[in-house]
Amino acid sequence: MPLITLLTDFGSRDAFVGIMKGVILKISPEINIIDLTHGIQPQEVGEGAFILSSAYPFFPDGTIHICVVDPGVGSKRRAIIIETEKYVFVGPDNGIFAYVYLREPNVRVISITQTDYMLPQISNTFHGRDIFASVAAHIANGVPISRFGPEVTDYHTGLISIPVVKDNIICARVLHIDHYGNIITNVGKSLFTETTKNKKFQIRLAAMTIDRIRNSYDEVNIGSFLAIWGSVDQLEIAVNKGNAAKLIGVLQGDPVEIRIEN
Amino acid sequence: MPLITLLTDFGSRDAFVGIMKGVILKISPEINIIDLTHGIQPQEVGEGAFILSSAYPFFPDGTIHICVVDPGVGSKRRAIIIETEKYVFVGPDNGIFAYVYLREPNVRVISITQTDYMLPQISNTFHGRDIFASVAAHIANGVPISRFGPEVTDYHTGLISIPVVKDNIICARVLHIDHYGNIITNVGKSLFTETTKNKKFQIRLAAMTIDRIRNSYDEVNIGSFLAIWGSVDQLEIAVNKGNAAKLIGVLQGDPVEIRIEN
Amino acid sequence: MPLITLLTDFGSRDAFVGIMKGVILKISPEINIIDLTHGIQPQEVGEGAFILSSAYPFFPDGTIHICVVDPGVGSKRRAIIIETEKYVFVGPDNGIFAYVYLREPNVRVISITQTDYMLPQISNTFHGRDIFASVAAHIANGVPISRFGPEVTDYHTGLISIPVVKDNIICARVLHIDHYGNIITNVGKSLFTETTKNKKFQIRLAAMTIDRIRNSYDEVNIGSFLAIWGSVDQLEIAVNKGNAAKLIGVLQGDPVEIRIEN
Repeated sequence: MPLITLLTDFGSRDAFVGIMKGVILKISPEINIIDLTHGIQPQEVGEGAFILSSAYPFFPDGTIHICVVDPGVGSKRRAIIIETEKYVFVGPDNGIFAYVYLREPNVRVISITQTDYMLPQISNTFHGRDIFASVAAHIANGVPISRFGPEVTDYHTGLISIPVVKDNIICARVLHIDHYGNIITNVGKSLFTETTKNKKFQIRLAAMTIDRIRNSYDEVNIGSFLAIWGSVDQLEIAVNKGNAAKLIGVLQGDPVEIRIEN
Repeated sequence: MPLITLLTDFGSRDAFVGIMKGVILKISPEINIIDLTHGIQPQEVGEGAFILSSAYPFFPDGTIHICVVDPGVGSKRRAIIIETEKYVFVGPDNGIFAYVYLREPNVRVISITQTDYMLPQISNTFHGRDIFASVAAHIANGVPISRFGPEVTDYHTGLISIPVVKDNIICARVLHIDHYGNIITNVGKSLFTETTKNKKFQIRLAAMTIDRIRNSYDEVNIGSFLAIWGSVDQLEIAVNKGNAAKLIGVLQGDPVEIRIEN
Repeated sequence: MPLITLLTDFGSRDAFVGIMKGVILKISPEINIIDLTHGIQPQEVGEGAFILSSAYPFFPDGTIHICVVDPGVGSKRRAIIIETEKYVFVGPDNGIFAYVYLREPNVRVISITQTDYMLPQISNTFHGRDIFASVAAHIANGVPISRFGPEVTDYHTGLISIPVVKDNIICARVLHIDHYGNIITNVGKSLFTETTKNKKFQIRLAAMTIDRIRNSYDEVNIGSFLAIWGSVDQLEIAVNKGNAAKLIGVLQGDPVEIRIEN
């Protein structure tokens, strides 16, 4: 039996997540359901895409990932199924699967049109319950994905934030602020290594400058800033035992510059 | 094996929810436990009742729903089991099951008095652990509910917020503000349809007026207000990609008026 | 198959918890994973130790408890496994297991050095994923704990906050503020009973004085302060249907005095 995971912006105040699990378990009683997170900022599709990318490769082959960050619910945006070599993804066609398309060599995308696999009544505000949970549970039960609708190629590939390199400067962005206030940038380790080529560099973010990468948070004093490779090999700005984003007043999307010496 | 669900106001800071699961799994090791939500506002029994009503019908027959919003813990308020056609409910007798009594045609209510099915030590502050989790796990194991205590008929039916209609005005209330700031009112679709009879109407909430119901959030511009039927067919006031409750300063319990033209 | 529980300070914004579960289920597909809490304040090892102590005894024998509050991640702090009579604990050697060492008569502590049971790539920032989840899953699969590394005796026993009694005064501290704003002190029931010996007493916290212990929150008026034995038999200061910590401006670590009359 495959696993199902859930990633949403549903938060914890309501029973939306619990309801989706009820729908799934009514259709596929033996399934194991795992929460990736329900703390995506409301309707922040780009953040959802990044968090999904950090998590899905750690799951067993065959896992079905349901992702619902869906500001267009009830509109004509499509509901889709993506099949990759190892996984199945179910969610709205709004760019939330941007990193899946980027990374996975072969994807097959189905537009969900067959109403037989949805709940009998489809609301205009909760397709997580009425479509995505129900469809995923039927996939877990072994229904071939071709049964859910036609294959499509004009899916929404989404936007991925990538640094621009010019004149020895890497012009980057803050991709995500995590629970600890660590500032995750869009600078990947390989881009950084290839661009800096062991030259000296300065990372500039707001009023702060850092000129080396550390191996652990506690290599600097408590309360001091540092740069470190984060858990998905993105450049991260942090404070030892502190909240970097709050201390420096940085928000998602803010610019980060890395100046490389000649 | 039945499912057990949990709905509480325990929040996420403490291990209260995890402890209840430990108690359940010690008694019934094979059980599958699903969280409905633990984000009910502290001691808001009415909110718990509404959220429970939005969720429980989506679960498989036989599911045992534990609900603990329990400001009277340790006092003489009863602990009860409710058996309906499809489900079992376990929790305090304080009105949290108001919608269950309203909707379910046949209910049998047991006052939990038999201490054999509770933990050996009963605290005065955590009956979720000492009574409700333990009792529900024994029910899951097949103990007939008549064993837990006597049937009672004078249970606390609770309060349900229902609109008043007079002089072509539906006098309604805000029932719940959800995670997105959507404003859920106590106006159900059938009452609205029967009362407005296709006449023109104006929904008034704080300084805002709306005169039609939309089919999706994105039928209006980003940042604009709209009315829509929510996921449990209650009239909902929302903002496309925004937080309606914050923008308009509305709280749970605030009045909503619907004026129907002659 | 044993249970695995998770206690972390990872919060709910990111997919850190979900990722750990993916790692575990890839190695041990049949395991049942239960969240104790992920709401420990960031890097508050002492709080994590207390919350763990309130929860772990309620789980079935054989449960594996993973605890990750780990400000020293990536440094030379050890990763350890603790085996007690009934349970296995996995986490950093930083004092988070203080109450386990205090309570459990026989503990065997292993320093995790064998990289075969870790993920192939070890990050400097996420040992929950790369070491602890992976190791725990292998333990669940039956790998003897002696395989993970050498036994050690110089583990970090941690700090436990205990009241000082002198001149008929119990000098105590606030150990934890729970989700409801209840103020949990470090005064246990047995110390209190042995020290007060049925004499009159006054509990003093900030500007407030209480001279008796209640049996339920609703023995006092709504909004009034009371003292009560909490769910792990620690003295708790609460407000009936209110948030005691906010009303009185009390924080974790603040002093509490109990003056005993002669």
